[in-house]
Amino acid sequence: MRETLIALRRAMQAAGVDAYVIPTDDFHGSEYVGDYFKCRKYVSGFTGSAGTLVVTADMAGLWTDGRYFLQAAQELRDSGIDLMKMGEKDTPSIKAFLADRLVPGQTLGFDGRTMTLQSGRELETAMEKHGISLRQDLDLVGEIWRDRPSLPGGEAWALPASYAGKGRKDKLGGLRREMEALGADTHILTSLDDICWLLNLRGDDVECCPVILSFLIMDGSGVRLYMDEKKLHPKLRGFLEADGVKLLPYLQIFSDVGEISPDAKVLLDPEKVSYAIVRRLPETAVVIEKANPTERAKAVKTQAEQDNMRAAHVKDGVALVKFTKWLKEHVGKVPMTEISAAEKLESLRAAQDFYHGPSFDPIFGYGPHGAIVHYSATQETDAAIAPEGFLLFDTGGHYLEGTTDVTRTVALGPVTAEMKRHFTLVLKGHLRLLGAKFRQGCSGVSLDILARQPLWEAGLDYNHGTGHGVGYLLSVHEGPQRIHYNTATVPAKLEPGMITSDEPGLYLTGQYGIRHESLLLCVEKETNEFGTFLGFEPLTMCPFDLDAVDPDLMTREEKDLLNDYHQRVFETISPYLCEKGTAWLKNATRPI
Amino acid sequence: MRETLIALRRAMQAAGVDAYVIPTDDFHGSEYVGDYFKCRKYVSGFTGSAGTLVVTADMAGLWTDGRYFLQAAQELRDSGIDLMKMGEKDTPSIKAFLADRLVPGQTLGFDGRTMTLQSGRELETAMEKHGISLRQDLDLVGEIWRDRPSLPGGEAWALPASYAGKGRKDKLGGLRREMEALGADTHILTSLDDICWLLNLRGDDVECCPVILSFLIMDGSGVRLYMDEKKLHPKLRGFLEADGVKLLPYLQIFSDVGEISPDAKVLLDPEKVSYAIVRRLPETAVVIEKANPTERAKAVKTQAEQDNMRAAHVKDGVALVKFTKWLKEHVGKVPMTEISAAEKLESLRAAQDFYHGPSFDPIFGYGPHGAIVHYSATQETDAAIAPEGFLLFDTGGHYLEGTTDVTRTVALGPVTAEMKRHFTLVLKGHLRLLGAKFRQGCSGVSLDILARQPLWEAGLDYNHGTGHGVGYLLSVHEGPQRIHYNTATVPAKLEPGMITSDEPGLYLTGQYGIRHESLLLCVEKETNEFGTFLGFEPLTMCPFDLDAVDPDLMTREEKDLLNDYHQRVFETISPYLCEKGTAWLKNATRPI
Repeated sequence: MRETLIALRRAMQAAGVDAYVIPTDDFHGSEYVGDYFKCRKYVSGFTGSAGTLVVTADMAGLWTDGRYFLQAAQELRDSGIDLMKMGEKDTPSIKAFLADRLVPGQTLGFDGRTMTLQSGRELETAMEKHGISLRQDLDLVGEIWRDRPSLPGGEAWALPASYAGKGRKDKLGGLRREMEALGADTHILTSLDDICWLLNLRGDDVECCPVILSFLIMDGSGVRLYMDEKKLHPKLRGFLEADGVKLLPYLQIFSDVGEISPDAKVLLDPEKVSYAIVRRLPETAVVIEKANPTERAKAVKTQAEQDNMRAAHVKDGVALVKFTKWLKEHVGKVPMTEISAAEKLESLRAAQDFYHGPSFDPIFGYGPHGAIVHYSATQETDAAIAPEGFLLFDTGGHYLEGTTDVTRTVALGPVTAEMKRHFTLVLKGHLRLLGAKFRQGCSGVSLDILARQPLWEAGLDYNHGTGHGVGYLLSVHEGPQRIHYNTATVPAKLEPGMITSDEPGLYLTGQYGIRHESLLLCVEKETNEFGTFLGFEPLTMCPFDLDAVDPDLMTREEKDLLNDYHQRVFETISPYLCEKGTAWLKNATRPI
Repeated sequence: MRETLIALRRAMQAAGVDAYVIPTDDFHGSEYVGDYFKCRKYVSGFTGSAGTLVVTADMAGLWTDGRYFLQAAQELRDSGIDLMKMGEKDTPSIKAFLADRLVPGQTLGFDGRTMTLQSGRELETAMEKHGISLRQDLDLVGEIWRDRPSLPGGEAWALPASYAGKGRKDKLGGLRREMEALGADTHILTSLDDICWLLNLRGDDVECCPVILSFLIMDGSGVRLYMDEKKLHPKLRGFLEADGVKLLPYLQIFSDVGEISPDAKVLLDPEKVSYAIVRRLPETAVVIEKANPTERAKAVKTQAEQDNMRAAHVKDGVALVKFTKWLKEHVGKVPMTEISAAEKLESLRAAQDFYHGPSFDPIFGYGPHGAIVHYSATQETDAAIAPEGFLLFDTGGHYLEGTTDVTRTVALGPVTAEMKRHFTLVLKGHLRLLGAKFRQGCSGVSLDILARQPLWEAGLDYNHGTGHGVGYLLSVHEGPQRIHYNTATVPAKLEPGMITSDEPGLYLTGQYGIRHESLLLCVEKETNEFGTFLGFEPLTMCPFDLDAVDPDLMTREEKDLLNDYHQRVFETISPYLCEKGTAWLKNATRPI
């Protein structure tokens, strides 16, 4: 049994709690979590990116999903912690498990800072029904954690208004107006990309996402920014203060929310703000639960952001084209593996000006690994790449000019007719979405079928969304728009200026995976007496591998879409290539 | 000024109300409203199917939508009532108007039985904010109405279980289980089609919808049905009582709901049940607001209902084919108008066995009238039909075997290339939806784009939904599924057994309208390791006019869909035709 588990149980007993829940989140619901926040990993030893640890006096279980069953089974061996396989029918939900194990009068503890209001409230409702008390103010892992890593301390920097396209004062004024329109006098903002977008700030506190650990409160008295002031150059601090932003220590938010006026009307997003913050508000304060107004504002890119995003994608395209040429020409001649190929692409991106690192952990899946949707090569799994089969790579970078996210699937040798058919069906869907013209008022729930229909007609499908929003030098996954047919609520309608991925795929377990992903900028196409019609401009500049395309399966319109796209790639990228590179790209983008 | 308006103001003064609102609804939110309930028409003289009359001491206004601006202006002349054009920017909403006209302390009255909980609550919230009191228990029109028509008294009859496919006891048991699963001990059901479906009853109380005016309460003590017992044959009454259904007078529901247990948990649909009923519930009763469980159960047709619906559509198809042949062959040779043509089609339907009358008021729109989406010919507008241009007809019938709803657009003479293009674009959309194969889990919000895309690509569109559910010898419009991209909430997912219309259109004001509508039965197409895939079987059996089709605008797949459909129509309908009819249909369904 792990020492950390024994220590936690001792702390639980001292605190008088009968069960303790440790989620994966930091205090902001970030997609990537810094070392300081990895409590679940510290106690359990499980290193995956998703999972919740539940500990009682005589049982400990780690709930995680299918992506991590194998890894978790290995990492939990001899830990004293059972693997609870989510999605399998014998596995109870955490709420059901706790309701079953605890008896009325007992107490469940957790650190309410690491749970959103929504999740916390669900737990609360389930426990109250069974007469179980909650303690949400317990950081028991913090109490037992020796040598806990410190909070990250990278420097913050200002994104120039020429890159952001809108000044800090403008954005703050716009948010204040939206706040007032919603009847609020106070707004609590805790999602890091929203705060950094609002203040035109960037930082280095979260892996793959250049943000700063911070909280923000806007009310009648002004704007309070909670962050480690050491991260700010005095000059930048001066600029912030000149725009009415007052600096306060990072963790002071948790006491300050208790001091908010008892008759405040507080706007906050229940899917973003933590349970702890809301529970500390004065009981009489009115909470207005809405999506953060910054979410939509951030999603509709300014003209400057759009122009910059195009520039970022030229740089990214140069790296991608050079990489693909290298890959196709060197496979079987020089040793390469999933990890070494990823390093090669990363070095080509890093050679571009103003590169700020990857926007997410690269996925390089060779052969059967390509069929594992969230595959990430490790030293143990790293496969040698041979001149046969498909290599799927899903990668992205941050540049000062914006963020990229692209997947291509490349044939490294001869492919069968069936592989070509699958490759082409996915491509048809990708192109149909890219080429769509649609009435303003459509959300992604209405567009998804365009990408899926060629697969559905063949009785095939993929079990992930077709598109997500992408931030500007922020999170590579952002809302409020998304493209997915299977949703309980209608996501935000698409608007000109939004950037969304287009990434249908097909995964044959044990064989191969195919995914074609580009980023698309939503643009207006036409306005007439019937309404306004929108469409997409592709931002990603990298050819699709014609060696794996079966033109006989494509309609004339689909071929035109592909040829137009390839011509655009050639015209955009070839000026940055040497003669041999240009010749290679010319052939790779030949019309079919 | 109308006498009725003067009388109403006198009654308002006597009752102490400063404003009175008269909606169009009966006590059940029925689409068609019987004469007894036509209070708004009685006071205002306006005969349209939608509109709300608002009367104060010194002003009276009728709010209605664009369909009725012309008609209302004529009918309201010299009435003392202003026409309030909804949707125009100078027109306030009724709530805003009342908030502006009334001062705090004044009283607004209405008959809460004629307003859904949802609408009543919105009015209540708006008035309370301005310190205006509500009186929802006033039927002032009832007080002043001399010779008010009596409530309809047609006979009720039982739909045999062989037609319904499921017995009354089964259905009641299923509803009770769903009620309990939602945590309710009492269920109030007031929508007539739900009640008739549940009890396998039909009647003659509402135009175009063979239902019985009734209410139903299900609780621990059994099932209470509130209706005029004179409509029931003693034998049928006996059957109902044997199945645990107790009969009570129609209007007694309004006092009985006040007697419901104070700790009852009452399931009801806030979009169906009236404001008056909910306000009369004991204040301590818990109201569980959900869609009626019968809504989904009714939408998924039983095997018997599906088989019958096919049979009804064969009968309807025979009438439609005979009508279309007559129309094409006789136009310009015998006099015909929109109304006389409608009568011709009605007589052909009436010649079929077990015909129960039209399922809605027929829409026959010739030439420019076809561009008016909700056009209904009157003696004044009735246009002579000549051998040129398009005739759009949208009609439907009830048979013992089910309900139909079909629109065809027929070319009565030479049509221009542009008319053919428009006709063909709408047809392409219709066929793409009909031919769709999609993952189970799709709702109509995801499918709509299939029907609209050919139009959207050409910068065209239509401003109505693409599909609605259809009842079985009940309302021709029923939920919970619908096909429309522009929706705030995701409608019910499509399921095998649901019947939905497929009716894209195109309307050029002052020129012509085109709509192609068939009913589609949702069927399972395939289940494999990727999931279950659904599709549609067309029920409607009537050719599309090939004289108006431009095959050059269609893909091979679209032509195949059309040819397959036409072949199915020929094979299904020709056995019921004479030799000449068969020859005509053979040509009308020739492959292209």
